[in-house]
Amino acid sequence: MTEASEAPIRADDAAIRGIIEAIAAGNLAQDAEAIAQYYAPGASIADLAPPLQRRDFDRAGMQAWLDGCGAPVEVATRNLVVEVAGDLAVAHGLQHTRTRTRSGEEAAWWSRVTRVLNRSQAGWRITHEHDSVPFHMDGSFRAAVDLEP
Amino acid sequence: MTEASEAPIRADDAAIRGIIEAIAAGNLAQDAEAIAQYYAPGASIADLAPPLQRRDFDRAGMQAWLDGCGAPVEVATRNLVVEVAGDLAVAHGLQHTRTRTRSGEEAAWWSRVTRVLNRSQAGWRITHEHDSVPFHMDGSFRAAVDLEP
Repeated sequence: MTEASEAPIRADDAAIRGIIEAIAAGNLAQDAEAIAQYYAPGASIADLAPPLQRRDFDRAGMQAWLDGCGAPVEVATRNLVVEVAGDLAVAHGLQHTRTRTRSGEEAAWWSRVTRVLNRSQAGWRITHEHDSVPFHMDGSFRAAVDLEP
Repeated sequence: MTEASEAPIRADDAAIRGIIEAIAAGNLAQDAEAIAQYYAPGASIADLAPPLQRRDFDRAGMQAWLDGCGAPVEVATRNLVVEVAGDLAVAHGLQHTRTRTRSGEEAAWWSRVTRVLNRSQAGWRITHEHDSVPFHMDGSFRAAVDLEP
């Protein structure tokens, strides 16, 4: 590492884990604005749904999705790895999302989430997010929303 | 940036782009060993196929897949973003993969590829790779291998 001390890295690591917890809290509160504040303008987002990639966190789309859920959205992270160097950080791991449909059915899945963060004057902000599930290569091309880690 | 000069970053940027080109060359040569050398031991890999995540680049699985292709595998990258700070780097963008099945049909798709690299004594090595396509949220859950950027 180029850093003279590990202490700033520990503080950055804690700040980034705090952002991931704040995003989970925003999901639980079904509040897209609370989530959006952690994304840099122009962030590249590769989401579960098409398109392949978009520019900028989609506040309106996220709020519409949250409003369409019939229960608070519980997001939990497992195997989270955070790495920091200078003004660049990455965070990747598995994410479990659980909610209910409007008709009351449980909806839950595991996905892989990789985030790139850059330090701005406002603090760490997400500049790239990649959230996905694999797909079954048995000829069905069905998204593997049924996997357990 | 913490670096005193931009020159080392330019060299690292070129080295990382070189690795991505070398991986493309390894696909074209259908040679998993040529690809595997750029992955760190214990790398976390989130691939197009299940499981959600694996440890270590799967040389045998990759060679079996390459051997099963009926033509060289052409890999091209678009919108590639490379960021370097100290001993940490990220590279993300869109990837087009094109080959043929054994029976001669064209197989081609776009995916999103995010990589984390760490500088080791041997040079930059991939410690995390996330390759995915989104899925259609029209109730079909079908992997969106038909998208264009």
